[in-house]
Amino acid sequence: MTDTKRNSAETEAQIYAEARRLFNLKGYVGMTLREIAAGVGIEAQSLYNYTKSKQDLVVALMRQGTVAIQEAVDKAVAAADPAPTAQLWAATFAHTQHYCSSEKVVLVREGLVHLSADRRADIVGLLKRYEDTFKDILRRGMEADEFRPLDVTPTCFAILGMGESVVNWFNPGRRLSATDVARMYADLAVRSVARPTA
Amino acid sequence: MTDTKRNSAETEAQIYAEARRLFNLKGYVGMTLREIAAGVGIEAQSLYNYTKSKQDLVVALMRQGTVAIQEAVDKAVAAADPAPTAQLWAATFAHTQHYCSSEKVVLVREGLVHLSADRRADIVGLLKRYEDTFKDILRRGMEADEFRPLDVTPTCFAILGMGESVVNWFNPGRRLSATDVARMYADLAVRSVARPTA
Repeated sequence: MTDTKRNSAETEAQIYAEARRLFNLKGYVGMTLREIAAGVGIEAQSLYNYTKSKQDLVVALMRQGTVAIQEAVDKAVAAADPAPTAQLWAATFAHTQHYCSSEKVVLVREGLVHLSADRRADIVGLLKRYEDTFKDILRRGMEADEFRPLDVTPTCFAILGMGESVVNWFNPGRRLSATDVARMYADLAVRSVARPTA
Repeated sequence: MTDTKRNSAETEAQIYAEARRLFNLKGYVGMTLREIAAGVGIEAQSLYNYTKSKQDLVVALMRQGTVAIQEAVDKAVAAADPAPTAQLWAATFAHTQHYCSSEKVVLVREGLVHLSADRRADIVGLLKRYEDTFKDILRRGMEADEFRPLDVTPTCFAILGMGESVVNWFNPGRRLSATDVARMYADLAVRSVARPTA
């Protein structure tokens, strides 16, 4: 790899990191390509070597973020006991832990409404696959009589929303680690759906 | 009341409704006073008869929203059985139902970081009082042995975050009503913290 290519890849990584920070802080409408360029220390014009538009950049961020959390949850579920209770615990743990890592998180849902229809459909497809991971576990848990009768869609959204909300308060420098919080939220999720013991 | 005064109050209500819509859609940074004026159908200059700045207007919205949900939850808790389980159910029901009403919701947390320190402290004080309503119920539930041992702060945030997340998907025209969803989420919350029966 030549020096120019390495610098180019480094600059691209910096652009993505700064775009993610500004998107999460200011929202899709509030962020500008000019600010991203200023944050990275390049000319606004040079940014067009890396992306065609703000929308392209944000869609790439959303795609990266959704793929990353899907991989984290798939890996956690694959490593867990096959029983639905253990799988829901592992999935909720990985989901919550991801949202405790502010350098990885992309607040995808907040930006969807501002995308063109085809780009939105692309990201919504990835989100649906992610939601299905949790919905499948909930369905299998009901079939196995480990979970009480549930309305799967709102229950799935409750568990995902609970985990996502750590972005509003979690701070890794304080009393609780990401692991502590992820464990507590996985416990809450599993107990919220468990079939009461007779 | 003269016609002028009535029109003035109506215009103010329209300004607040449009400001809330744009704040929730575009975020604090993305919304502009010019757009609010255009949405209401008045001159941008006339808006200054109603508010000094975007920040003043957003702080007023945040205050209104936080006071409204506090009142709804206080009323639900006062009407419920005094047992902590019944009170947590009632509080979570009212909390979730509020977030199902898009015309009332103000996404307060997203805007806090953009406020001046004294305005932020004012709103954070209202939010803390709201959180304390749930924390007090959780503490009383542990003392009464109705709830398992819990870390109160993250558990409170989990329940609030779960309810708030309905803004991402709830649509009153579909299969589930706000009451259906609020009931399900109250059930999830109560079960997630209940002491397991021996």
